[in-house]
Amino acid sequence: MTDRKLELAQLIEAQGNKVRQLKAAKAEKATIDAEVEILKSLKQELAALEGNTGKGKAAKNSFTLKTPKGTKDYNDKEMAIREKVFSTITKVFKKHGAVTIDTPVFELKEILSGKYGEDSKLIYDLADQGGEECSLRYDLTVPFARFLAMNGKEYQNIKRYHIAKVYRRDQPAMTKGRMREFYQCDFDIAGTYDAMIPDSECLKILCEALTALDVGKFTVKINHRKILDGIFQVCGVPEASIRPISSAVDKLDKLPWEDVRKEMTEEKGLAPEVADKIGEYVKLKGGRDLLQQLLKDEVLTKNQSALEGLKDMEVLFDYLEIFDVMNKMSFDLSLARGLDYYTGVIYEAVTEKSAPPKLADGVTPKKKADSDELDESTVGVGSIAAGGRYDNLVGMFSGRNKKGEPNLKIPCVGVSIGVERVFSILLAKQRAEEIKANETQVYVIAVGDGLLKERMQIANELWAADIKAAFMFKNKPKLDKQWAACEKEQIPFAVIIGRDELDKGEIRVKDMRSKDASQGGGVTIKRDNMVEELRSRLASL
Amino acid sequence: MTDRKLELAQLIEAQGNKVRQLKAAKAEKATIDAEVEILKSLKQELAALEGNTGKGKAAKNSFTLKTPKGTKDYNDKEMAIREKVFSTITKVFKKHGAVTIDTPVFELKEILSGKYGEDSKLIYDLADQGGEECSLRYDLTVPFARFLAMNGKEYQNIKRYHIAKVYRRDQPAMTKGRMREFYQCDFDIAGTYDAMIPDSECLKILCEALTALDVGKFTVKINHRKILDGIFQVCGVPEASIRPISSAVDKLDKLPWEDVRKEMTEEKGLAPEVADKIGEYVKLKGGRDLLQQLLKDEVLTKNQSALEGLKDMEVLFDYLEIFDVMNKMSFDLSLARGLDYYTGVIYEAVTEKSAPPKLADGVTPKKKADSDELDESTVGVGSIAAGGRYDNLVGMFSGRNKKGEPNLKIPCVGVSIGVERVFSILLAKQRAEEIKANETQVYVIAVGDGLLKERMQIANELWAADIKAAFMFKNKPKLDKQWAACEKEQIPFAVIIGRDELDKGEIRVKDMRSKDASQGGGVTIKRDNMVEELRSRLASL
Repeated sequence: MTDRKLELAQLIEAQGNKVRQLKAAKAEKATIDAEVEILKSLKQELAALEGNTGKGKAAKNSFTLKTPKGTKDYNDKEMAIREKVFSTITKVFKKHGAVTIDTPVFELKEILSGKYGEDSKLIYDLADQGGEECSLRYDLTVPFARFLAMNGKEYQNIKRYHIAKVYRRDQPAMTKGRMREFYQCDFDIAGTYDAMIPDSECLKILCEALTALDVGKFTVKINHRKILDGIFQVCGVPEASIRPISSAVDKLDKLPWEDVRKEMTEEKGLAPEVADKIGEYVKLKGGRDLLQQLLKDEVLTKNQSALEGLKDMEVLFDYLEIFDVMNKMSFDLSLARGLDYYTGVIYEAVTEKSAPPKLADGVTPKKKADSDELDESTVGVGSIAAGGRYDNLVGMFSGRNKKGEPNLKIPCVGVSIGVERVFSILLAKQRAEEIKANETQVYVIAVGDGLLKERMQIANELWAADIKAAFMFKNKPKLDKQWAACEKEQIPFAVIIGRDELDKGEIRVKDMRSKDASQGGGVTIKRDNMVEELRSRLASL
Repeated sequence: MTDRKLELAQLIEAQGNKVRQLKAAKAEKATIDAEVEILKSLKQELAALEGNTGKGKAAKNSFTLKTPKGTKDYNDKEMAIREKVFSTITKVFKKHGAVTIDTPVFELKEILSGKYGEDSKLIYDLADQGGEECSLRYDLTVPFARFLAMNGKEYQNIKRYHIAKVYRRDQPAMTKGRMREFYQCDFDIAGTYDAMIPDSECLKILCEALTALDVGKFTVKINHRKILDGIFQVCGVPEASIRPISSAVDKLDKLPWEDVRKEMTEEKGLAPEVADKIGEYVKLKGGRDLLQQLLKDEVLTKNQSALEGLKDMEVLFDYLEIFDVMNKMSFDLSLARGLDYYTGVIYEAVTEKSAPPKLADGVTPKKKADSDELDESTVGVGSIAAGGRYDNLVGMFSGRNKKGEPNLKIPCVGVSIGVERVFSILLAKQRAEEIKANETQVYVIAVGDGLLKERMQIANELWAADIKAAFMFKNKPKLDKQWAACEKEQIPFAVIIGRDELDKGEIRVKDMRSKDASQGGGVTIKRDNMVEELRSRLASL
């Protein structure tokens, strides 16, 4: 047995216990369902591993019928949820004047290199089949910056959104929903503008989107890289250690202060008294009150970087008040965000439902190595959306002038919504059998001798009137089979035809949702009025 | 200079001449624009090749700012067209009760192997970074068949569509729009049904989609594999040569009969008199008349396979009459379709605009090697959509029982719309500056002292009312800059605010499309009525 298989076996046992406990405690159905899903994916992963190394190769000409590790199919019902999520988000983006662009799923390898720090090892490369070296995109931000740098003047100002899959060769953690292929849903504003105006609109959009998605109560943690850098400076962190120490602070949402302090002092060689000073700052949380308190901090405000950050926050909070979203914000000095490229305001939204799941007894959580990874790929970890300002990324692509400055500097601010997490939350809310994936409105049913051509004729008339219609692909289908299909597909109306009625120019319309027995086989109407009748009934759905 | 560079230089010269001739002949703007686009992509390709091998490496830290060969970015305007195409097609699919599923962008390598014949060499593989061997999907049909085989009973009957990118390491031919990453747009019906009913609905959907896309006049060439196989048998083609000879026939839309006959006799060793007999059949085209003629052909109808095919066609034509699309069909015995897996009816739609472009003088067209490639990836080649019945593909994945029969046989019929070709046709119809990519409805403009917070407040009220609004991200923007932005973005209405008016509780609304000078600076209304006023104006757009 490999390590992973052993680990999986243990995880399955622990998860099984958890489900049993929840059931015994009569927990909410959605909660139990979510845990059962985790159990299922653990079992699937184990089965796949066993299939790959053992039985799978035994039978000749037999395929390992699975998707690659860390990927999955989305069936019709999952897609119905997914499309609803995308259209909800897209509507918000478009309300704010955003356009969309698309970039290839793979980029030249050199475009991605040097952008993701240690996580570069998670990038998928294409095989060398002659030609250029390419890699699958790791996020949507770097391709966007490459697009801006390539298009120069034409796209110096753009509000763009991009909803697409990204790829990371991360360790399998389907329990946490961490997939290797997953969606990102990004909105960014590029352009040189007055301070904090686009930043405030990004935060407004984030709040509008999460509200529209109905993910439950959420809070947006907000901080500023310049304030954080100022704090590190006044506490006495050496310049070269600022980013590593910032990475350590970023773990405060998952680890207690003692562990983070240990990382700072033992792993990263920070003096204990410096770490303790940092500790005093990063425990601070609040709103405008905290901002006022920091503005009175004479040590901090003497630091240029911190002062700039605090002034930015003052302006930003004013704008957020106007946009009615200040009440969602939590000014949180422990928020650091992993990625190096942020230069200004940073933020991360957490929902009550996205708190880390408690592990079953006896299972030790694996500490993740120092990582720049965005939380968008993880489920069950705090963040449901995140973003910030990154003013220098486009310049990294644009070449340098004689003074070493980038030829083209396009400041950007953006937000990425963790839609995989949103899917999980929404999927847990709904019972699979209640999700209607097809949009069919009318099922054409024959009583008696099949009447295939007549059913086709009726369906054709309905299609011509833009009514979504279907019928059974049989010459002589049984009546009960037709009813069953209509019910299974949750089609709201049936048009019922019979020889005698057709000869009289009549058909019947039945409301399938009506439990009223008196309605019986529906209402008989003139065939000529069929479209009109159905249109008015559909309009009142 | 490499061969390709030399070839490109020649193509650029020839294409340049062609553009000059068209201009001299005062050809239509759209025609010239299309040829200029071809010229541009040739030049881009040459520049990219030169950049890669020459100058590109010279400057340190400079990136080759390009997308990988055969891929491209889609900017906001191209995306606006693309989304319109997708939503038009999706609407048709949904009208027919289709649901969508999604599969990963890469599959286990073994899933794809043995499905594409010689074209397997065009499959993109992922690098071996430890773990499973994977390849990017080559089409959407094989992943769909894999999905059906994997899900067994649950998805034995499904009408599904899938719009997604596929990947082929084909030779660069951006002139013909043949990209390495491109969209396919597939609709398929899986399930065991009575003959020709789903087939006829597929053809109906194809016709509805092309009509809705407004691609101009089109014809659907239609044939049946069983008829074709019957013809080959009665003409005396040895069993083992049937598929190769069928491939040769498939080229009749691009090559004259003489060339195809030569391929049959010289390359594929067919007896000349057999080839000539085939020639008599494959030149036949028509409608029901041709079907009647063939049904009277005593030699052909004695062949079991041909007779079955002809009977199928008789039934199919009846259904197509009912669906009002028989008039779009051309029963064409020269249609063979490349892919091996078709087992029944096959079809291919051609538009008047999708005829192969004439090459400039002095440029020899490269004959493509015997290929199974679908036409979806090519532009300027006849087909705009294609499909057929494939009853055995799912069975290839499902393992075999003791008798060697597949455990699970799910017959399928489908159609794939060549959307890249559709984009080109629609893009050529529109001038770039006329495409409005953003959906912004109202621009909030300040007269006088900037009034940033007031503009934000107004925008916030509009957003709350689901009105798409934007404003300039400047504290004190100049009035003319605000007008210019509003006009450039083609935003239909402006809300104009000034200090004095705001104090009186008033704002102005201006219809930006109105050339009526008397309207001047717009109409003054109560601020409280702003949302109502704009809603009623937007409703009448």
